[in-house]
Amino acid sequence: MKALLFDVFGTVVDWRTSIAREVRNQCGPDVDSFSFADRWRSMYQPAMEEVRSGRRPFTRLDVLHLESLRVVLSEFDIRLAEDRIAALNQAWHRLDPWPDSVPGLTRLRTEFIIAPLSNGNISLLLDMAKNAGLPWDAILGAEPVQAYKPTPDAYLRTADILGLEPSECMMVAAHNSDLAAAADCGFATAFVARPLEHGPSQTTDLVAEADWTYHVDSIDSLATQLGC
Amino acid sequence: MKALLFDVFGTVVDWRTSIAREVRNQCGPDVDSFSFADRWRSMYQPAMEEVRSGRRPFTRLDVLHLESLRVVLSEFDIRLAEDRIAALNQAWHRLDPWPDSVPGLTRLRTEFIIAPLSNGNISLLLDMAKNAGLPWDAILGAEPVQAYKPTPDAYLRTADILGLEPSECMMVAAHNSDLAAAADCGFATAFVARPLEHGPSQTTDLVAEADWTYHVDSIDSLATQLGC
Repeated sequence: MKALLFDVFGTVVDWRTSIAREVRNQCGPDVDSFSFADRWRSMYQPAMEEVRSGRRPFTRLDVLHLESLRVVLSEFDIRLAEDRIAALNQAWHRLDPWPDSVPGLTRLRTEFIIAPLSNGNISLLLDMAKNAGLPWDAILGAEPVQAYKPTPDAYLRTADILGLEPSECMMVAAHNSDLAAAADCGFATAFVARPLEHGPSQTTDLVAEADWTYHVDSIDSLATQLGC
Repeated sequence: MKALLFDVFGTVVDWRTSIAREVRNQCGPDVDSFSFADRWRSMYQPAMEEVRSGRRPFTRLDVLHLESLRVVLSEFDIRLAEDRIAALNQAWHRLDPWPDSVPGLTRLRTEFIIAPLSNGNISLLLDMAKNAGLPWDAILGAEPVQAYKPTPDAYLRTADILGLEPSECMMVAAHNSDLAAAADCGFATAFVARPLEHGPSQTTDLVAEADWTYHVDSIDSLATQLGC
């Protein structure tokens, strides 16, 4: 194994708490900020599906997020000035990491190439890394390969960019579906349980649903299991 | 100014001394290793010109380097096993930085986004960064934008990936031609004098040939000028 590729939203950062906080900041305390965050996030997969299906050319996640945000604001009957809409959309560039992420990544980086393999665009992931201190070796993911996970090209082209065989790469994610797609491409897999990603009543991805290469409850534990 | 984009070969790393050392290691002491390095490097621009002209689809620098290496080995009448040819081609992944590069970049990173805007491919630049401790925020350059400098798309698409206006970006390079192309795209410019890039008898790029935004003799001096 030479490279560890990380899912980011949910696996490395706590998008729900971070987005809810920014919604409160921009829209005020009367808005149900967690419902707003959940609804915004619920439009993520359908928006990318337009690209994956070929109905739409590759479009950066920042653009998809902004389109979804306008719909959610309308549904919640909230009017914001354009500069505040833009600021709220940038909330995805400032997500907070889970407490174990920076220590775990810092340990893993001593032995492996570490990079995001996220559907986030490069500037989103770069700003997030700079803000949160995520010590990536490179910013990879959907934008450099022009393909959204779980399309096989997202994984295979990332391995190719790194000059590695898929078997030299491991996908690290809190989502069984992401790991299943990576495994189909020949990647090793590590499941990181994040039972609070969707809040206290989360029902999905509570446990590993297949025999992934590693099962851990934090990125720090993964570093321990890999001997870093 | 928000992002500093760096030329790498010659500006951040001393390719000539590093390549000559690897040539000696792989080919033995009887080869004129500096002449070999110079000849190999001389095929760099013509190889990229095939892509820039549209005669060839975008092809990674690792591939262009390997094709050129086979020609140079033949010209020098050197026979190497395939695994040693591959190892020698990887020499570009292990180039040593100039002494001021790591300290300077480390200071600049506290205030700016720093990334390579190099014609090197992602895995070449990533391996080099990991080996030399170059603290990039992201690995940008020809491969993510599928265009070789000095094609305008190499600069303009990089600014676009970063979500920045060209005027928010500064190109840092030891080569006047690179800075001229970046300036034409609206970038700010910093000339770093590297009078030994081509050895003691260098005749080109000894001085700034236009009124670039900054003129310095090291990346550390650039950090000082920018107040880092």
